[in-house]
Amino acid sequence: MSQADRFLNACRGLPVDRTPIWIMRQAGRYLPEYRAVRGKVPFLTLCKTPDLAAEVTLQPVNILGVDAAILFSDILLVCEAMGMELILEDQGPQFPSPLKSRADVDQLHVPDPETELAFVPEAVRRIRRALDGRVPLIGFCGAPWTLAAYMIEGKTSRSFEKAKAMLLADDALAEALLGKLSAALILYLNAQLAAGAQAVQIFDSWAGALGPEDYARLGAPYIARVIRGLKRDSNQPVIVFGVETGELLSQLAGTGAGVVGVDWRVPLDQARGRVGPTVTLQGNLDPTSLFLPRARLEQRARRVLEQADLAGGGHIFNLGHGILPGTPVEAAQALVEVVHAHSPAR
Amino acid sequence: MSQADRFLNACRGLPVDRTPIWIMRQAGRYLPEYRAVRGKVPFLTLCKTPDLAAEVTLQPVNILGVDAAILFSDILLVCEAMGMELILEDQGPQFPSPLKSRADVDQLHVPDPETELAFVPEAVRRIRRALDGRVPLIGFCGAPWTLAAYMIEGKTSRSFEKAKAMLLADDALAEALLGKLSAALILYLNAQLAAGAQAVQIFDSWAGALGPEDYARLGAPYIARVIRGLKRDSNQPVIVFGVETGELLSQLAGTGAGVVGVDWRVPLDQARGRVGPTVTLQGNLDPTSLFLPRARLEQRARRVLEQADLAGGGHIFNLGHGILPGTPVEAAQALVEVVHAHSPAR
Repeated sequence: MSQADRFLNACRGLPVDRTPIWIMRQAGRYLPEYRAVRGKVPFLTLCKTPDLAAEVTLQPVNILGVDAAILFSDILLVCEAMGMELILEDQGPQFPSPLKSRADVDQLHVPDPETELAFVPEAVRRIRRALDGRVPLIGFCGAPWTLAAYMIEGKTSRSFEKAKAMLLADDALAEALLGKLSAALILYLNAQLAAGAQAVQIFDSWAGALGPEDYARLGAPYIARVIRGLKRDSNQPVIVFGVETGELLSQLAGTGAGVVGVDWRVPLDQARGRVGPTVTLQGNLDPTSLFLPRARLEQRARRVLEQADLAGGGHIFNLGHGILPGTPVEAAQALVEVVHAHSPAR
Repeated sequence: MSQADRFLNACRGLPVDRTPIWIMRQAGRYLPEYRAVRGKVPFLTLCKTPDLAAEVTLQPVNILGVDAAILFSDILLVCEAMGMELILEDQGPQFPSPLKSRADVDQLHVPDPETELAFVPEAVRRIRRALDGRVPLIGFCGAPWTLAAYMIEGKTSRSFEKAKAMLLADDALAEALLGKLSAALILYLNAQLAAGAQAVQIFDSWAGALGPEDYARLGAPYIARVIRGLKRDSNQPVIVFGVETGELLSQLAGTGAGVVGVDWRVPLDQARGRVGPTVTLQGNLDPTSLFLPRARLEQRARRVLEQADLAGGGHIFNLGHGILPGTPVEAAQALVEVVHAHSPAR
């Protein structure tokens, strides 16, 4: 089996020669090669320049030997194209004019990704050419709730009380905003798929800011709506992932995604009971494990492989959250080696 | 039944006339009366001046009508008494010289609370006199893991990678630090109990930074050790609480605590399955509910009461995390009214 098939087979629960691995935020600040590119241009310019986005997308494929590439971009670019002023700097993203009313929501428009976000499908095409079939390319977007939360709060938050107060107090406004975001994301992901993305991941980064009953209203149904709107064949899988989703895993599995990413807090064998037998599990090593001595890192990576074996069904190895900025590159390299060396064919 | 008995009966699973309620961080920034006191003195001075600590401890009893008072203090004072320089300001607590080595750990000492933390038992005595039996007084401390995490990171953190790397890479150092903290906390809580605290709560604020297998090494066993060391009678219950503890609830219930506080993400009836039939559940309204219109707040509070009914066993109403700084006082007052009006005798 070629490295190119490993990830896509695992997404569909088909046999693999060994467990595929990629790492959330694998193109990022922990890599000196990334920081060298980033040192020359602002973050938004990097995202909007297809050659640069392609360059950093390929870095971890070459440096770590991971089994999939993921488009370098940011989940908030689509919000900017909808009409929100966006500032992306090192202290975190900011919308200087957050949404405050239904009128603000009504002013947002659903962008045409081929023109207003043209740099994204163009980056996808260039990355596919540069990868030349070595490993598949994953496209991505943020989930409607997560984007709405940012757009209302104006920045990241500990508790998201503004976003929750606004969306939980006014059902019509919630549907207006989340519905418009869903429509935009359908077009956006379809543009990535049409340009050559071989899978897409929907990041619901702030899923865990909602309890199960609120997630059943504001979260999962809109992810399901996005997935229903995708034009794809059965070889183009959808992955959903959120943080602090222990109580939400069954809802994530019910969105229609074929792969559910699991937060590092929930052992994979326990996650299996919550998602049912058919979806592939992705994850879920604790990212702080990469700060431990090699022997302990290896022990913990093998423990995740054991839990995946207990879980049964498809498995894609990943961290259970994005790789942390200060992570030693050698630790990430060691992790890929360990997973490739110790995972059985399944 | 008098208001004074409601909380302590519920802790022990005994009959109550209605569900008792108190609110984590009920004495705090959301109250103008608190901000007036706090405007006059630095935070540490407030904690270390028994009359002022007593004054703010009583504020929510008078303003909200809650069924228990909780000592106004800070979990990090005991670390300061152990030898750590501590800065408590509005941007969050800081230890300017965090723990970096085994030698740093060995330099910490176990303080005598009656002399080195004398302001705490003295505040307890004054609060008991001022309360005059109206409602019980809860003492508290931080859990060993949470204190260790602060002492190693030097401040709050998103991922606690320094603390986890240090404690998960060196088992002897972990035992040295967590064991010393446990010894200090036993003395500290015993001093509060001897001074008149009628219950104690152990806050493991950063429990959710550890996955279940790590919590079983670094978290729960040290809470259990503290609880075993307490000199108390069966009328002095122990409550444990942590955030993001969905996967840790069975371990919290196994510490020997009679009451387990539940993060707002886990419905109480589901929590019951994880903690077993005997412990009392505390919680767990989502704190952002207090930003909703009164009708929706009432609906959500009654939903928690329904889930507690489904759960069976003892129940103390609370938020599932601390009250947020911008919470309207009227919402907190309304919550207490709703819980008292709609909870049946049980």
